[in-house]
Amino acid sequence: MRDNLTIVKVGGNVVEEEASLKSLLKDFSRIAGNKILVHGGGKTATILSEKLGIEAKKVDGRRITDAETLKVVTMVYAGLVNKNIVAGLQALGNNAIGLTGADLDMITAIKRPVKEIDYGYVGDIKTVNFQALNELIEEGAIPVMAPITHDGHGQLLNTNADTIASEIAVAMSREYEVRLIFCFEKSGVLMNEADEHSKISEINPELFEQLKSDGIVSGGMIPKLSDGFAALHRGVKVVVITNPAGISEGLRGTRLVLE
Amino acid sequence: MRDNLTIVKVGGNVVEEEASLKSLLKDFSRIAGNKILVHGGGKTATILSEKLGIEAKKVDGRRITDAETLKVVTMVYAGLVNKNIVAGLQALGNNAIGLTGADLDMITAIKRPVKEIDYGYVGDIKTVNFQALNELIEEGAIPVMAPITHDGHGQLLNTNADTIASEIAVAMSREYEVRLIFCFEKSGVLMNEADEHSKISEINPELFEQLKSDGIVSGGMIPKLSDGFAALHRGVKVVVITNPAGISEGLRGTRLVLE
Repeated sequence: MRDNLTIVKVGGNVVEEEASLKSLLKDFSRIAGNKILVHGGGKTATILSEKLGIEAKKVDGRRITDAETLKVVTMVYAGLVNKNIVAGLQALGNNAIGLTGADLDMITAIKRPVKEIDYGYVGDIKTVNFQALNELIEEGAIPVMAPITHDGHGQLLNTNADTIASEIAVAMSREYEVRLIFCFEKSGVLMNEADEHSKISEINPELFEQLKSDGIVSGGMIPKLSDGFAALHRGVKVVVITNPAGISEGLRGTRLVLE
Repeated sequence: MRDNLTIVKVGGNVVEEEASLKSLLKDFSRIAGNKILVHGGGKTATILSEKLGIEAKKVDGRRITDAETLKVVTMVYAGLVNKNIVAGLQALGNNAIGLTGADLDMITAIKRPVKEIDYGYVGDIKTVNFQALNELIEEGAIPVMAPITHDGHGQLLNTNADTIASEIAVAMSREYEVRLIFCFEKSGVLMNEADEHSKISEINPELFEQLKSDGIVSGGMIPKLSDGFAALHRGVKVVVITNPAGISEGLRGTRLVLE
């Protein structure tokens, strides 16, 4: 029987406010067995950019990463957010190690080619280093991944954290039964955004299409769910969207299913 | 026979200007065998602090680290500087991994007690995790250490990079013949700061006392040399102060000796 591996992606307010981060780390530390945490940090990056007078540009919810913005996200994601998470997990007895794609050549990416939009220093994932991640996990370490990758030629790149979580989940499915959890503020995908009780318990591709055309699923949730379905198609066992409480309480939330 | 391990500490302009960093990384990548890089980044942190309107405070050349400054140094040291070094080394075929003291619990520290001066979030080193560092080295990884430690209770701390290099050198001397290289802009310790040809080839403790009382060695060089002598007393084989060229050219520079 293959070992389990739980990959939790946290973003939004969960990771960027001290109280909710502490609570998240407690929930995460209670997960038994092998695990990986992938985090964002976009709001803190936006605030720092503003303080530095760098204009934050977005197209369709995706950040445009110019040279100055790349410096900001490298500082915020790989430095401030990542190391505070690592120190917080260490305090809870979880042997965390903070990583970007550059460290041990974990994730290489290609600078996104300029078509209609020039995204700047944004990286589309090329390879995930299964062996290096697996060695760390086998030694009992808990990788904490910041959404920064590299091109192998010395250039750091900004890569979407949801995509990093999905690609790691797919790569690790070679040897593990992988559960991929997208963790954010809400208890799951809601029929009515204002009503936490309107959570949808399961979404299959057909329902996904309907929810999109009804405008119930929109914005950043669309690529998140697309990544989730793609991960299921490529060998990931379980994909769930939930809040921190949902992690520790037997994976309540919205589950993605293929049929 | 025991394996060699070379520990290079780089600071000052060497690591913070793009051209000199590239050159340093080339020199470092040519070092054969096991190696560790320890870096600073104080100037970049000072510039970022100024941009953010945070006053940079120093007493006797040591930075006072208030809560806002701790955020800045965590972003600059552990994020911007560390990850650019790691990506640069990966491009040169060196399998670098960037670390702070929090990652894998590498270095724990105690927040410096307040006596005459309150240094703020400054950490004095308590433990170096020999086993975790050694496992990475045995797997062929090249640790790149940022001068950030943690207290084991979730608090990150700012720790002097020279001291981190010395303490790692001492800890690794349990199993390795350790060469500790303090790398900066000048070719070594100079009798006359303006004359690169006035390099002192060897300094013993007696000469060190004389150089201090003559004012030839002053400022940040005093704790650097003190750390170096302490490291020799505690089992480190070689301590050299040199510039990047000195690393690749058979360790030219100023060598510290005990007799």
